[in-house]
Amino acid sequence: MAQIIATSPLARPMPELGSVRGVRLQAMAAGIRYKGRTDLVLAEFTPGTTVAGVFTQSKCPGAPVDWCRAILPAGQARALVVNAGNANVFTGRAGRETCEATARAAADLAGCAPEQVYLASTGVIGEILPAERITAALPALHAALSDTGWESAARGIMTTDTFPKAAVRTATLGGAEVVIQGMAKGSGMIAPDMATMLGFVATDAALPAPVLQALLAAGVQKTFNCITVDSDTSTSDMVLLFATGAAGNAPLATTDIDSAELAGFRAALNDVLHTLALMVIRDGEGATKLMTISVSGAVSDASAWRVGMAIGNSPLVKTAIAGEDANWGRIVMAVGKCGEPADRDTLSVSIGGVCIARNGTVTEGYDETPVVAHMKGQEIDIAVDLGLGDGCAKVWSCDLTHGYIDINGSYRS
Amino acid sequence: MAQIIATSPLARPMPELGSVRGVRLQAMAAGIRYKGRTDLVLAEFTPGTTVAGVFTQSKCPGAPVDWCRAILPAGQARALVVNAGNANVFTGRAGRETCEATARAAADLAGCAPEQVYLASTGVIGEILPAERITAALPALHAALSDTGWESAARGIMTTDTFPKAAVRTATLGGAEVVIQGMAKGSGMIAPDMATMLGFVATDAALPAPVLQALLAAGVQKTFNCITVDSDTSTSDMVLLFATGAAGNAPLATTDIDSAELAGFRAALNDVLHTLALMVIRDGEGATKLMTISVSGAVSDASAWRVGMAIGNSPLVKTAIAGEDANWGRIVMAVGKCGEPADRDTLSVSIGGVCIARNGTVTEGYDETPVVAHMKGQEIDIAVDLGLGDGCAKVWSCDLTHGYIDINGSYRS
Repeated sequence: MAQIIATSPLARPMPELGSVRGVRLQAMAAGIRYKGRTDLVLAEFTPGTTVAGVFTQSKCPGAPVDWCRAILPAGQARALVVNAGNANVFTGRAGRETCEATARAAADLAGCAPEQVYLASTGVIGEILPAERITAALPALHAALSDTGWESAARGIMTTDTFPKAAVRTATLGGAEVVIQGMAKGSGMIAPDMATMLGFVATDAALPAPVLQALLAAGVQKTFNCITVDSDTSTSDMVLLFATGAAGNAPLATTDIDSAELAGFRAALNDVLHTLALMVIRDGEGATKLMTISVSGAVSDASAWRVGMAIGNSPLVKTAIAGEDANWGRIVMAVGKCGEPADRDTLSVSIGGVCIARNGTVTEGYDETPVVAHMKGQEIDIAVDLGLGDGCAKVWSCDLTHGYIDINGSYRS
Repeated sequence: MAQIIATSPLARPMPELGSVRGVRLQAMAAGIRYKGRTDLVLAEFTPGTTVAGVFTQSKCPGAPVDWCRAILPAGQARALVVNAGNANVFTGRAGRETCEATARAAADLAGCAPEQVYLASTGVIGEILPAERITAALPALHAALSDTGWESAARGIMTTDTFPKAAVRTATLGGAEVVIQGMAKGSGMIAPDMATMLGFVATDAALPAPVLQALLAAGVQKTFNCITVDSDTSTSDMVLLFATGAAGNAPLATTDIDSAELAGFRAALNDVLHTLALMVIRDGEGATKLMTISVSGAVSDASAWRVGMAIGNSPLVKTAIAGEDANWGRIVMAVGKCGEPADRDTLSVSIGGVCIARNGTVTEGYDETPVVAHMKGQEIDIAVDLGLGDGCAKVWSCDLTHGYIDINGSYRS
């Protein structure tokens, strides 16, 4: 089973978390898969809480993804139940029944309808998730709910993660100071497509569900959807954003997320999403280096993103980074292979701010020394300019090391 | 630099190679990059030899790919020069000049036009390939040409390959027995898109260039284009097929490659291409297991191919195979992520002929024992039925091991 994995060298300390008015939560050890660690999280939201969500684009989504997608249009949330260790994916009718039983049990405790209970599961695929392990644990968990349970919850949703991931920001909205606080988990099977493994963010702002949804979708596009550990998009990806309204801010005058009224909130939310997404990469399975890939000069932003992801997903680029080898030829290979418009003779490649190659050949007098020094650091910057247009994107990835093989080549990790 | 790499456990012995009438070839050590090993190959073809070629779809192709593409429409070949150790890619004008100088030097020796000389290079990207190392070596190499030089040539084109790759078949065509004999190299940066790293096949059959081209393009589609080691399509992929006509077969009555007249030849050619392509996977960097992925029930053959490649490229599937873990949930993940039409509830997954999951959940009474035994073997069979249509495809890949990281994480391997 799972071996001891050392904390990622790229880990970030847990920030000091406060509470989010209208949210109480807690984690406990329910023995779902792991022994001697917390693996079940319950959060309860004050009545009137709105919700937004983005989900994996996988054609084989887990039962909890189906459940959340089905209840999201109502835009109302009263509870969230998350378990780690078993993803409840490819479990057929048993998986659906586990969702229904879990939602019913949580709804009874929270005094709401089952359709106001959000569910998320992460862990092994294809094994039946026994509902009774969860429903039996929920009453004690509900009794222990606390507005200071955030750190405990961030630990309770971990699987192969080596450190808990959380972020908090504040903003001013409608005359009130509001808090945005969130957590995420994810380490392997990370190449989100509309969301990543699991992310849960709550704010005490009062925001209508459609506005919340637009803010989340836009924010995820430039954060969680721009990270990759191993190109393997999960069946369970989900980011949920809850707004309790407890801050008592004035109602919005607009529903336009580009409005000045929402600018501060939006920036703070995007910063939370960005911070959480980067923590997932910093905890990429086996990662020792964080790669930031900036693509410019593409024919469109979407094209730039695909070029960036091709670089970030290339096993040969990732192993070169692991080996501290400024093997820029592999970056050229990745640009060339990805099927996006590119012209060898207008392409430039930089590493660590040093332009190595431009216009189809190595830069005259290229001195590898500063690039070699940069490669020895923990944060590697790669910049590619395609020289074709104004499209740009930024993508984050990590290196591919023996650690990844250790973690994923062991029996049913 | 390159470390000693043990021969792949999946290696196949060199078949007994004969000669191909009309072809003389030889390899020698020209000191292009490697010390103490052959790295330059010259082949000369009898006047009248026709040629077909398929090339990488990379947007950053090497100079030799550009060269060959430009001369291919004439359909005539008199010589082939291949070097290992330097791919002559992203080398700008210097790269083009090296091609021109090499072709001129070989043309002088063969008594032909430079536009009848085919060129291929494989190795590191972005370093200038010094033409003089090649042109200085060519006269001695030309003097040593022999119709028994095939094995020497198969070794001379290797880079990180751990064993030489060749195949030979015979067929009857136009009343004559003809030979089809070829070699390939490739181990990493293998996810061919119209061709693989380098493959060279010759026959003594007399075939017009357009027929040869149609046969090669069709053959590659089901062989070289269905293999992947690491999803990284090379800048230098190329398969060339030469037909010397020395067998003296009667001219074709048709140019239709589906005709009965060509059936035997086509089957033998496809068998050569298939054998060479599988040898590349058997020599995949770090490979210890050969994965055969059969996809059926897709909406089209192209869709089935993309599903198969998503499974074959998934780092999580590949590490599970390395760990001998029948982690079929990762196969479900790969099917789900690839964007092709798929329905979780009609999907079946088998490993080693055992149906593990069907209709969206694990098979009732699934006993893992025979699957665990299958996973310990060297050849792993994965079958996925999407349950949607008649599309099918077969794809080959290998596992992802510490060996891959060792080979590619070392400095400028």
